[in-house]
Amino acid sequence: MSEAAPPWSASCPLPIEPEVITLGHGSGGRLSHRLQEEVFLPAFSNPALDRREDAAVVVAGADRLAFSTDSFVVSPLFFPGGDLGELAVNGTVNDLACAGAEPRYLSAAFVLEEGLPLETLRRLVASMARAAARAQVAIVTGDTKVVERGKGDGVFVTTSGIGALRPGVELSPRRCQPGDVVLVSGTLGDHGVAVMAARHDLGLLGDELRSDTAPLHELARSLLDAAPGTRCLRDPTRGGLAAALTEIAAQAGCSIELAEEALPVTDTVRGALELMGLDPLLVANEGKLCAVVPADQADAALAAWRGHPLGRAAARVGTLGAERSGLLSVRTPFGGRRTVILPLSDPLPRIC
Amino acid sequence: MSEAAPPWSASCPLPIEPEVITLGHGSGGRLSHRLQEEVFLPAFSNPALDRREDAAVVVAGADRLAFSTDSFVVSPLFFPGGDLGELAVNGTVNDLACAGAEPRYLSAAFVLEEGLPLETLRRLVASMARAAARAQVAIVTGDTKVVERGKGDGVFVTTSGIGALRPGVELSPRRCQPGDVVLVSGTLGDHGVAVMAARHDLGLLGDELRSDTAPLHELARSLLDAAPGTRCLRDPTRGGLAAALTEIAAQAGCSIELAEEALPVTDTVRGALELMGLDPLLVANEGKLCAVVPADQADAALAAWRGHPLGRAAARVGTLGAERSGLLSVRTPFGGRRTVILPLSDPLPRIC
Repeated sequence: MSEAAPPWSASCPLPIEPEVITLGHGSGGRLSHRLQEEVFLPAFSNPALDRREDAAVVVAGADRLAFSTDSFVVSPLFFPGGDLGELAVNGTVNDLACAGAEPRYLSAAFVLEEGLPLETLRRLVASMARAAARAQVAIVTGDTKVVERGKGDGVFVTTSGIGALRPGVELSPRRCQPGDVVLVSGTLGDHGVAVMAARHDLGLLGDELRSDTAPLHELARSLLDAAPGTRCLRDPTRGGLAAALTEIAAQAGCSIELAEEALPVTDTVRGALELMGLDPLLVANEGKLCAVVPADQADAALAAWRGHPLGRAAARVGTLGAERSGLLSVRTPFGGRRTVILPLSDPLPRIC
Repeated sequence: MSEAAPPWSASCPLPIEPEVITLGHGSGGRLSHRLQEEVFLPAFSNPALDRREDAAVVVAGADRLAFSTDSFVVSPLFFPGGDLGELAVNGTVNDLACAGAEPRYLSAAFVLEEGLPLETLRRLVASMARAAARAQVAIVTGDTKVVERGKGDGVFVTTSGIGALRPGVELSPRRCQPGDVVLVSGTLGDHGVAVMAARHDLGLLGDELRSDTAPLHELARSLLDAAPGTRCLRDPTRGGLAAALTEIAAQAGCSIELAEEALPVTDTVRGALELMGLDPLLVANEGKLCAVVPADQADAALAAWRGHPLGRAAARVGTLGAERSGLLSVRTPFGGRRTVILPLSDPLPRIC
């Protein structure tokens, strides 16, 4: 390479890749993806990890298990509709459910900041206990560390979970085919908007902005019963539905086209998102599933979801096409089509 | 209660129980213990958790699994003999090994601070990969979150692990009996002293201060082969050997007496501890096991450990007595006896 032409000079006056960690590396955007691709996957490579699912499928003795972990650093700790503790339980329960497993056991590791009121910790722990009871999982092991004031932010919780895989279930984007249908189990964007409103004290946006955090194992189970051909299942958290579907499309080697008017968004959330200048496709959910199912099982799947209190607003939102792999686009009501490009980083940091 | 006599006035001018989290709550001392007893155990109670082992034993299908988690917040990130990444892998491997399990799968969840050099992350990840290869475990799932500058401290890593329990193995302090023997697999205090020396730049204490961090699954395996009657196994990390043995004694309903001259401590560590005014019994190890074995299997156990590179300095250090439950004491070479009282909090914070 000639000295006069460094590799980045042609189109960009600065290297794009930052040499330090930025908030974007923790989002659901392209920087997160790159960190995974360039740092974690090459170093730790093994068959279970390389599948890049939210939960790994591992074999222990005669059984197939799902195994998953997530750290929760949401700020503020308490927000309308939930708190960090509830999120930490539901988040891992949902990753297990999306692998087609029945969630069974959780671990909980706390990193506490010196000076945290004990009462705050008690509230979060009580909330975790309630969430675990609701999801029918047991928190069987844990750990607590404390860091000095100014070296943490109140409470971080990392939960890991083990689930028992349903016999015969094999969910993976690689099973998707052109013609398959994309379903979502309810309205989009509720969690991200509720946390942002709480963080910036945007009470004016209305009392109806509440996180949708919920355990989704029952919705997953009812889907797999009603549509046994289900290809794959995701809970579209960080990066929103767009991040989940872009990943599915890339791994499936398909394109995905969504119908804009089919995307369920409440009026309150839509209003708030318009004020914030955000796209509902990019905002985190903590109580919604998206699934890719064969077209002939879509109606049965939708009926199963709509019969559950957490799935009443379930909708068919798009279809898989044979076009360029990884392409996600939205068909507008006027017949136009826009391509959805994942941003480098999430517009809403620390929402989970 | 009379207004003139608040409950704490008789012996102490201030309430002892702090209403906020202090660094002591993250130590291996009594405050940690109290937090467990008063906050976590009552809220999450279930049979696996209530056994209070470092790893929970759970049943999945036909198999018994060990499941464990730990967050690692050591400061500095790199220290002589190891780093946070290596510690995070070995720590969870060792908790599984102490349950009598063969470590199999790990998860790794990262909380990164904005501004962390990518190169630092790469070094830690490479170190984790090497440690996982050495311990023959696969890191199969993970997560990354980023918090703003000043809301974290470089890198925190939480690992969780799954191990397959050896058939027939049932390790628990409740199986201990008076007359049983206490063994340690090597010298005490190396890790805690090495981290403190690195933190305070105490190069003057000598180049030989190195963390003992190591995976202990082979030592655990050789012990269980040589001494199948082994009652229980611990890796004495935070709070040192004293915390591990106090817990064993309390759960066993026994007392434990150590012989001071039998405790293996290198001259370098002993010198450093004397300068710091610390007791080797209270300082963390990250590459040592302690075991309670029946007296007639102690020689076989010691021989097995001494035959392994990580167990060459293994020693018989004490015996269990029928005296008051939970009492840990040290017999001095001059025939005196001192009771070991766990401090409220660890004298060395953030060493793991």
